[in-house]
Order: sequence, then C-alpha cells, then structure tokens
Amino acid sequence: MKRFTGAAVLMAVMMMVAVPAMAEQKKVRWKLAMTWGSTLTPLSDSGPILAKMVSDMTGGNFEIRAEGAEKHKAALGILDMVKGGQYEMGHTASYYWKGKDVTTTFFTTAPFDMTAPEQFGWYYHGGGLELMQQVYGKFDALSFPGGNTGVQMGGWFRKEITSLDDLKGLKMRIPGLAGEVFAKLGVNVTNIAPGELYTSLDRGTIDALEWVGPGMDIKMGFYKIAPYYYAGWHEPASELQFLVNKKAFEELPPEYQAILVTAMEAVRGRQVAANFDANAKAWQQMKAEYPDIKVMKFPEPVLQAMKKATDEVLEGYAAENAEFKEVYESRKAYFKVARPWTKISEQNYLSTSDAVIE
Amino acid sequence: MKRFTGAAVLMAVMMMVAVPAMAEQKKVRWKLAMTWGSTLTPLSDSGPILAKMVSDMTGGNFEIRAEGAEKHKAALGILDMVKGGQYEMGHTASYYWKGKDVTTTFFTTAPFDMTAPEQFGWYYHGGGLELMQQVYGKFDALSFPGGNTGVQMGGWFRKEITSLDDLKGLKMRIPGLAGEVFAKLGVNVTNIAPGELYTSLDRGTIDALEWVGPGMDIKMGFYKIAPYYYAGWHEPASELQFLVNKKAFEELPPEYQAILVTAMEAVRGRQVAANFDANAKAWQQMKAEYPDIKVMKFPEPVLQAMKKATDEVLEGYAAENAEFKEVYESRKAYFKVARPWTKISEQNYLSTSDAVIE
Repeated sequence: MKRFTGAAVLMAVMMMVAVPAMAEQKKVRWKLAMTWGSTLTPLSDSGPILAKMVSDMTGGNFEIRAEGAEKHKAALGILDMVKGGQYEMGHTASYYWKGKDVTTTFFTTAPFDMTAPEQFGWYYHGGGLELMQQVYGKFDALSFPGGNTGVQMGGWFRKEITSLDDLKGLKMRIPGLAGEVFAKLGVNVTNIAPGELYTSLDRGTIDALEWVGPGMDIKMGFYKIAPYYYAGWHEPASELQFLVNKKAFEELPPEYQAILVTAMEAVRGRQVAANFDANAKAWQQMKAEYPDIKVMKFPEPVLQAMKKATDEVLEGYAAENAEFKEVYESRKAYFKVARPWTKISEQNYLSTSDAVIE
Repeated sequence: MKRFTGAAVLMAVMMMVAVPAMAEQKKVRWKLAMTWGSTLTPLSDSGPILAKMVSDMTGGNFEIRAEGAEKHKAALGILDMVKGGQYEMGHTASYYWKGKDVTTTFFTTAPFDMTAPEQFGWYYHGGGLELMQQVYGKFDALSFPGGNTGVQMGGWFRKEITSLDDLKGLKMRIPGLAGEVFAKLGVNVTNIAPGELYTSLDRGTIDALEWVGPGMDIKMGFYKIAPYYYAGWHEPASELQFLVNKKAFEELPPEYQAILVTAMEAVRGRQVAANFDANAKAWQQMKAEYPDIKVMKFPEPVLQAMKKATDEVLEGYAAENAEFKEVYESRKAYFKVARPWTKISEQNYLSTSDAVIE
C-alpha cells in the first residue's frame, strides 16, 4: 500500500470536501439601498428583516447590509445604483422609475386597477412576474414583489369636493399617473418637498395633498389641518419592490440564489401584515384624537370623470409604447377574471358583516 | 518536522472542515403528510413547493417528501402523526383538531370574524403566532400559517332562503362551528362523505351543502343541481397550517430551522395567490356554463340570528375553557382595530370602483 505525505492527503481531502461545501460556505457581502430612511417604519423594516433571514439561513456567510436614504442620499436613485453595481440590491417601489420607463409603474399599481390580492394573483398566475423581468431586463436588474401598502387613501382636502367644478384650479400635491389624471380635470398639480407639505397645506399654498395611508400620514399631522379624508382610487395596491443586480445574482451559488429569492417572498408577506397593522392602529389613534375627521367618497360624476381621464392617460401611453400596451392588456385581462370573484367573496362578506357587526 | 500518516491527516482535516460545514452539510430526510390527496390542487401544491424550496436552498441536503392522503390514509390524522413522529411535518388546517382542542379552530377562522388581511395582521402584530404556539405546545408541535383560501362561500342551496322559517328543518351538510350555529337555528345538520354529496343533493336527501369556494366546488358539480350560491359568513379567511414535530425541529441545525421557517412563510403567500386564482378562474367558468347561478346574500334578519347564535356558541366555549377565552378575546380586540381600516380602505375602494367599472 502506497503511503501519502500529509500534504498530499490534505490536498486530496480538501478537494473532496471542498466541492460540495464550497457553494454553501462562500462568504458573500452585499449592500442593499432603501428608498426610505432607516427609521421610516414599517417600510424600512423590510431590508433589515431580509438581511437577518439570509444571514440566519447561511450561518452568517451571506451578509446583507441595509442602508437608508440618509446614508446614500439617493432615495430615487436606487435603480441607477443597482444597475451600476454600487449596491447589489435595493428596496423601493417600481413607479419611481416612471421617468425612465413608464411601463415600470404597472408593477406598483394603477388607478382604478386591481386590489392587492387580485394583483398578487396576476403576478403569480397572470404573467405579471414574467413581464416584470422582461421590463427590468433592460436595466440589467431582476425585480421581485417586496410588500404592499394596501389601498392608499385619496388624500387630505381642506374643503369638500361636491362636483367637478370644485376640482378646477384646486392646488394639490399628487404625483405620478394620478397627477396626470387630475391635471386633465383642471387640478393645478404641484410638487412640494415632503418637509414643506404641512406648512404649505396649513397656509393654503395648496388646498389638498395625497400621501399614503394612516400609518404614514399620522407622522405628517395633516389630519389636524385638513378634515376631509378621501377614499382611495389611484393606488389600490401599491406593491413595493426588491431590485437585484442581475450579474451579482448570477454570481451567487445556486443555494444562495434560492435563499435570497425565498427570503424576499417571505419578507413580502411580513411587509403586507406590517402595513396593514400600522394603518389600522394609526387610523384608530387619529380618530380618537380628531373625531371630526370626515371619511369621504368622491361624488359619482367626479369618479366617472376620473376614470375616463385615467383611461385616456393609459391609452395614450399604450398608443406609443408597445411594451406598455402589452402589460396594460395583461392587467386588464386578469382584472376581468379577478374582480367578479372579489365581488362575490370579499366584498359580499364585508357588506354581510356590516349588517350584523356594529 | 513530524510526519503524519495519511489517516491522521484525514482525521484532522475532517475535524477542521467539519465544524463549520456540518450544520449546512447535514443530510436530513423528512416526510410531510398532507390532509389533501396529491392531486387536489391548489391545496396539494404547497407541500411539494415547500420541499423544492428547501432542497434548492440546501443543495439537496435537506429533502422533504410530501405524501398525499391516498398514501397515508389518514387525512384527519395529521396532528396525531406529527405528534407521534411518523411524519416530521404536515400541511393541513387547524380546525380539523376541534374535537381534540376547540381552541385550535381559531387558527383557521371563525364565523363573522376577520378577513384574510386582518387575520394575517393579528398573526404577526396581534399576538396570534404566539397564542398558536402556546395551544400547539400541548401536542409537542409547532404550527405555522400555511396559506389561506380567502372567503369561503356560504354554500349551494336548492331553494332560496327568505326567512328564518326556511332554515327550520332544512337538511344541510355544514361541519364545524358553522354547523353548531345552524343547528341552533333549527337546521338539520348532517355529515355526508364527500363522494356521496352530489347524489345526496341531487336526490333531495339534503337541501343544501357548504363546501369551499368556486375553485374546489367546480370539481364537485353542485352548481348544476342547486342554483342558489350564498355569500360567505362562516369562514371568512380559512388559514391553512404547517405542523412541525417540535423535537424534530429542535434537532435541525439552526440554518435548516431558518430555511424551513422562511420557506413556510414564502409558501403561504404562494398558496394565497393560487387559491385566489383558482377561485377566480373557476367562477368565470361556472358562470359561463350556467349563467343562471344566483349569487345570494342571506336576508338581514337571518344574518342577525346567525350572528347571535355564533356569539352564543363562542361564549359557551369561552365560559368553560380559559385558553379558548384568551384567544377569543385576543381576536375580538384585534378585530376592533382592524375592521375600521378595512372599511375605509378596501371596502370603500371596491364600492368606489363599482361606480365606474362595469
């Protein structure tokens, strides 16, 4: 029997055990950039929760450092930073890239469109996930669902909206597609930095503004100066987004890829629950402090004009952008299947319980 | 320099690399028992999806074999088999253990109780997860959310229910808490094996039955013989359940524990989307085949009697079972915070869109 030196055996053993072990033992250090500041809960919880899950699943071998906007100073530069590789990933919202590619807005939400359960069905069973990767392919990025705010409220108004005339000349902060829709109806749509919103509303520089929902709105104090809180129409299911640099992802061992993707799916659910809870508790607190907050619905003629303007805005983009049209058609097709079920299930149950629960 | 034999070096190297690698390299083989048969999609998809996720994340080192009811022949014996260790885990629904411990029903759903988003908020932010572990502790098991069917329909009726009198003497298959409630209202509640339900309904042996929702109902064909499809009241958010043998879980390396828990969270979301999609598509198909299906709501006096009977049933259990009371109070407290938000967000949005979307 031939004898080996220790060094030769060491080499042989290292090779034997290194092959299966390597993939899982590889040390990986990533950075994740968040659109939100580190203290803007619950949105800012997702990055750190993801990091902890991934670390726990890899015994600390795959570490992700989540950095808030106060650190990278580029809240709306996440896509560029992930594309460029300064950050391997981000936690943000797809519609912030409307200026680069208007089709990205659909992966957040659209006016008068699907609710969160409907849209989640579209992502997994209506082709949504595939279309999202197609759109983000041109940014060398992968995109994943990253939570959902639920229905966003229509905003805080100092005066009641009783007719279309009340919208004409109204000064309102409302960005994105909803801003385009309101502009068509004669609203004077303005953009104001978040830090100046309260003062602008208080002094009448603006008459109304749209923010998010009770969980985020309560920190801004708008309910103290604008008592009309309108029901949502423009962001019925704002999905958050994990962005991942494609090359960085492809360089991960397959186990780490699976770990990252599974963790993002799990975090998505947590973020949905966290947003629901934050909104519910903040709404209870606001109502207790200011019982005179009036929850309003826009009158039907106003809603119909808003819907018509929404269709015009979306058809306009679709006419000049084939990929926008493709995603738009996909969403409309799924909506037609999804909404009738929502109506006979969730909506009927809620009205059924209205009859018996005070 | 001292020379080692090959065997000694081998030992030394194995020990060196074995310590960090062991946790992740450990071979684990588990079995998962499903309450459902292997082809009862989408419920039966969750076990195999979980198994694939866990395998992918561990490079095939942690393998789970999902077995359907046709194999283990104990659809309603999952808790016993997980407790006894014949299966390390199961995919099932908590309310099947009502006979062993009535408090387990709350981790599925309860009549006139929370919707799926509300209940998910309760699990993560209202103490639900902790209460669930407390209740399952006595079965040496851990329990995790495992998907949600959404609102279940109130069932198929051959005749319209116009008053409380129509319930008296009605022969109906409806199990669980809802069966107790209907029994109080004079319904002749019966239990019939699934395979005999269609014939029983067709021949008038029963007048009505409750099953699940369109996705499952369509396979049973009830819509062909009972045209009244009542809105749900009794299972507004039936959560599915992963059960895990506590000792088996504790013996897993910490990385595998984290991998399993994260995968269950991810699968939960997938199952929600899959149920939504299956219901929506089946409802579209049923309506196309049988346009005369009548979606009904119970009249208000009937609903009020059902709610009163529900309260009596639940208060009855609470009076004699302190842990039941504890979970019941916890759910009622969260409901009070959650529902006002659901009403001004999801419910208002749905009625808002009703005004403008055909």
